[in-house]
Amino acid sequence: MEEKAFFNLSYGVFVLGANLDGKINACITNTCMQVANDPTRIAIAAINTNLTCEMIKKSGTFSLSVLDKDTTFDTIKHFGYQSGRNVDKFADFAYELDANKNPYIKKQICSLLTCKIISSTDLGTHSLFIAEVQDAKVMSDKAPITYADYQKDIKPKTKVQTDKKIIGWRCKICGYELNESNLPSDFVCPICGHPADDFEPIYAD
Amino acid sequence: MEEKAFFNLSYGVFVLGANLDGKINACITNTCMQVANDPTRIAIAAINTNLTCEMIKKSGTFSLSVLDKDTTFDTIKHFGYQSGRNVDKFADFAYELDANKNPYIKKQICSLLTCKIISSTDLGTHSLFIAEVQDAKVMSDKAPITYADYQKDIKPKTKVQTDKKIIGWRCKICGYELNESNLPSDFVCPICGHPADDFEPIYAD
Repeated sequence: MEEKAFFNLSYGVFVLGANLDGKINACITNTCMQVANDPTRIAIAAINTNLTCEMIKKSGTFSLSVLDKDTTFDTIKHFGYQSGRNVDKFADFAYELDANKNPYIKKQICSLLTCKIISSTDLGTHSLFIAEVQDAKVMSDKAPITYADYQKDIKPKTKVQTDKKIIGWRCKICGYELNESNLPSDFVCPICGHPADDFEPIYAD
Repeated sequence: MEEKAFFNLSYGVFVLGANLDGKINACITNTCMQVANDPTRIAIAAINTNLTCEMIKKSGTFSLSVLDKDTTFDTIKHFGYQSGRNVDKFADFAYELDANKNPYIKKQICSLLTCKIISSTDLGTHSLFIAEVQDAKVMSDKAPITYADYQKDIKPKTKVQTDKKIIGWRCKICGYELNESNLPSDFVCPICGHPADDFEPIYAD
């Protein structure tokens, strides 16, 4: 099994919005595809340990903001590199609520899907949700970004520095940072589930 | 509901290979995503009326060839614009068989996934399959194509011609051609399920 073979699957980049009993939250996901068209159905996958995943399992609805070419690393970092368990991600980020009262972002979004979950399958690390699309809107005339665009153009490049002290490790897949100099070989990223092989060192300044 | 909002979802382009009792076949699909990573699971969707879909439902396995930047329109047309019910698609196209004896193409492929279906959900027009990835191989160092690349760079452009007779209609989504001058307003593409709005005229020479 060559893990790199999976890097050739193409994805978009999305903000997945949730509302559970009035508490709103959102995370970044790269997995969404339309899987039927009469009636319209989409499928998304989310990490089980992720707060947004827990919330949408309970609420049964979500919003999906398709990120466009204006997307900045700050937006990805804001929704993707921190947890709603510790931070109110919408305290300082412009948003509106859709018909299900799920939040969606007001900038860097080219499409908005308003969705109701019709089935959920637990696959171990992730759950796969099939959802009815209740509404779909075009939000800008910008093209969407792909996950490859994010890796190539949006994510900051790491410099190779061999003469400096390692102070941490960064997941090359999702950007999660572990603030320890030693990375156990069986370490698994708590955000995206990728193994130690997918981490790169963070050096002291 | 704005149908165009769905055009902002990003996809790859794949050849889905099947073998049922020794008969081999394949079709084009744009829906595949990794949905879990321990154990590794992917999800694909296929059109229920499609022969390859019928075959993999019965055989329980499939191959997935990820198409790369060398992909030509001829390859897409070969696997996507004709049915294995009428044509032996592998009679004149170089292929090999994977461990499940499903065919995969030898050129224009950057990754190959060997897959075993673990669940199938009928969604009306399409079925959604969750599959175990038994093997994954990198097949070239070329980048994969996205569905947007296909629409923009690979698919031939249609000229606007208003002084010619309309002899048929072509689905702008999948390329299916209807050889009739009149397109009923409730017509639905038999290949990809898109409505009459997504068809463009084919003119007489």
